[in-house]
Amino acid sequence: MPEMKRSERALIIIGGHEDKEDKKLILRAVAERVGSGKLVVATVASQQQEELWTEYERLFRGLGVRHVYKLSVDSREDAKSEASVRVLEGANGVFFTGGDQVRITSQLGCSPVCQRIQEIYESGGVIAGTSAGASVMSETMMVSGNGDETHRLGAGLQLAPGLGLIRGIIVDQHFAERGRLGRLVAAVAQNPRIIGIGIDENTAVIVERDQKFTVLGEGGVTIVDGGSMTYSNLTDEETDRALSVFDVKLHILSQGDVYDCQSRRPKPEAAEVIEEELMGAT
Amino acid sequence: MPEMKRSERALIIIGGHEDKEDKKLILRAVAERVGSGKLVVATVASQQQEELWTEYERLFRGLGVRHVYKLSVDSREDAKSEASVRVLEGANGVFFTGGDQVRITSQLGCSPVCQRIQEIYESGGVIAGTSAGASVMSETMMVSGNGDETHRLGAGLQLAPGLGLIRGIIVDQHFAERGRLGRLVAAVAQNPRIIGIGIDENTAVIVERDQKFTVLGEGGVTIVDGGSMTYSNLTDEETDRALSVFDVKLHILSQGDVYDCQSRRPKPEAAEVIEEELMGAT
Repeated sequence: MPEMKRSERALIIIGGHEDKEDKKLILRAVAERVGSGKLVVATVASQQQEELWTEYERLFRGLGVRHVYKLSVDSREDAKSEASVRVLEGANGVFFTGGDQVRITSQLGCSPVCQRIQEIYESGGVIAGTSAGASVMSETMMVSGNGDETHRLGAGLQLAPGLGLIRGIIVDQHFAERGRLGRLVAAVAQNPRIIGIGIDENTAVIVERDQKFTVLGEGGVTIVDGGSMTYSNLTDEETDRALSVFDVKLHILSQGDVYDCQSRRPKPEAAEVIEEELMGAT
Repeated sequence: MPEMKRSERALIIIGGHEDKEDKKLILRAVAERVGSGKLVVATVASQQQEELWTEYERLFRGLGVRHVYKLSVDSREDAKSEASVRVLEGANGVFFTGGDQVRITSQLGCSPVCQRIQEIYESGGVIAGTSAGASVMSETMMVSGNGDETHRLGAGLQLAPGLGLIRGIIVDQHFAERGRLGRLVAAVAQNPRIIGIGIDENTAVIVERDQKFTVLGEGGVTIVDGGSMTYSNLTDEETDRALSVFDVKLHILSQGDVYDCQSRRPKPEAAEVIEEELMGAT
């Protein structure tokens, strides 16, 4: 059973600052899914690619991953190069480091490297990303917007197309730590079709079957579901005004809790465990 | 009509850092309600009572309030003294400065001064407060709890009995600026009977008829309504765990928007204006 589970594709979306010193729960989850396979660390989001590579190589090797490779990209040329594509050959895991999410999408978007990453995912691999590497997972991604304030209509919330590995959600990271409720609500209000997923530091969601995710780690995951929204002043022309949004549904999830993006329903850890046991028993 | 309005009692609950330099919208609203009456500035929350008094006296005099008096309390003795009670004589407005909310309640609670403030309110006065002075308005008040993180079960959210001028709500201030969603949700989850009202800096709610409030100022007011809550892990014994809370209703209100604490419904500014005009026309 555990072996089967590991061959199911998964996204591990991490809110930044995952523990690298102590139990390393989240990085361990990535390592376990890669198992005896091959993990590629993509440092493309960062301008300190060497430092990040050195750190994550050490970490993943320490967690038992024997085949760890570096994907360092600094231009669209790099993303098209045969060398880059070759690095991904046979990989069953890709880990995106933090940095600037637009460095990832502008360089990898519509490249053979991106195509290969998609294939790795579709053939049962794990794609993980922390901070900027978390933001790129969705169709539309959060790029920038102020933290620690209620969103202002003229405040220039910046969204961009992400890698599109998962549909129907938008991810924000360093969520509680940087007070990002305002900008996530603003993103969701633009089109409540997408569910806002705010992930705290040292916290991750593990998405399975493109639909359900489980929370792992120390902090919380805040879900902003705008499906029930009755009003917003988003199209108001007064740009100096604060955003009004009524009747948004909010969930805060902690470790072990599960959220189903299709039914838009959360489930506490205990309920999920019981259900899985029942399913195992039949 | 406007004259009548001013004789209705009101609470002006301010999220801290109200503008003191520019348009002074919020302090102006306090001054206008006091009108030609008498305003008492209560600096009791602070340990810098003289500095605050000097500043607010200048501000309120500049805004046209001719009778501005100081209520400086440093002990329960002060709160019981005839001098303190006399300061409040004939006042139709009280303004609580910021500082430590427990300094207000522990010194004024069950004192003749507190009794007088209650009477001023009941006879149509305005009671205003900023920051700590905002927190004390409710029955149960927020004292402390971490900002910028999802609430942790063992994190020592501290609540205390407030002045009780308004029932059914709990106020948090400096709300978006200090990332206080986690602690406000945690407070509401303890008993969803109370509605969480998170007020940003330079933003206020003006409560009329003990029930409905209007937002004034630059930022937002975040309402956490736990009436629809379906689950929380609040009573879990694992104290190092993050709080899970499902199905909380969230509203973000901006200037002019109205919230009815009884029906638990928000209304956009425009709808409220139209309604008032219709009422005026009948």
